[in-house]
Amino acid sequence: MKLVLAIVQDADTPGLMRSLSEQGYEVTKLASTGGFLREGNTTLMIGVQDERLPHLKTLVAQNCRSRSRLVTPSVPMGEQGEGLVADPVEVPVGGAVMFVVNVDEFVRV
Amino acid sequence: MKLVLAIVQDADTPGLMRSLSEQGYEVTKLASTGGFLREGNTTLMIGVQDERLPHLKTLVAQNCRSRSRLVTPSVPMGEQGEGLVADPVEVPVGGAVMFVVNVDEFVRV
Amino acid sequence: MKLVLAIVQDADTPGLMRSLSEQGYEVTKLASTGGFLREGNTTLMIGVQDERLPHLKTLVAQNCRSRSRLVTPSVPMGEQGEGLVADPVEVPVGGAVMFVVNVDEFVRV
Ligand code: NI
Ligand code: NI
Ligand code: NI
Repeated sequence: MKLVLAIVQDADTPGLMRSLSEQGYEVTKLASTGGFLREGNTTLMIGVQDERLPHLKTLVAQNCRSRSRLVTPSVPMGEQGEGLVADPVEVPVGGAVMFVVNVDEFVRV
Repeated sequence: MKLVLAIVQDADTPGLMRSLSEQGYEVTKLASTGGFLREGNTTLMIGVQDERLPHLKTLVAQNCRSRSRLVTPSVPMGEQGEGLVADPVEVPVGGAVMFVVNVDEFVRV
Repeated sequence: MKLVLAIVQDADTPGLMRSLSEQGYEVTKLASTGGFLREGNTTLMIGVQDERLPHLKTLVAQNCRSRSRLVTPSVPMGEQGEGLVADPVEVPVGGAVMFVVNVDEFVRV
């Protein structure tokens, strides 16, 4: 058995947790911040049988893949004049990291 | 040395932490939610010498064993009439899971 | 690769996180309480290449070493009289523990 500690962006967390739950994974969610990825992430603890690990990685990749989104920067009103519209810029979103650790023993009481 | 990540119901956490502390275990408590067990759980990180692991498992089992409690469902007043009393139902409480992971190195500074 | 779970006093956390970030470590911060060390600690998850582990341990030791601080106990006013000043006492601060765990696999999506 493996323990997977997955660090996921907040925006991707609800969708990933729904997918995991539908597929029968048991997930524990820890509050976390900073460092890996940008602001606002969540750490998930997931116990997984060795043979299902590739499947779990696919689920995480599908729900959290790095991608970019076009965002139109807000232009301060007044100074710029009403006609002016700023060009949209690409903002990176998503991405996840997973630490896979071997489990010596799993106990349920 | 082993690192034990124990996921415990909130209701059992104070009693377990008191037992662990009385027996000389050092415990760190992480805020966690969902997935394993029902709503409202806590993740405990416990460092333990290999030879004390059976003792730790006993303490967790004693404090967190799965059990059921009889609960009398609340019956909305007025609609049902005052004389009516619903039958008590069994509600599961407690339970815990423990991931035991090998520690390569333990450092105290 | 190793996963380091470091339990650090809150007071030392900002300085340590700044040092780690300057040196290129990726750190995830979990909210935690009690047990190890005194009240108010933080758990940091840090992924590290095996060969950088000694360097990481040095950074933690530099930022979190156990030390003591002189504190003048507050004396209740009125009862003692205004002229009385209590002797300063040494209060321990700092300290950290690190669990180093082997990483089977590290995945970034
Ligand atoms: Ni296994
Ligand atoms: Ni050992
Ligand atoms: Ni390695």
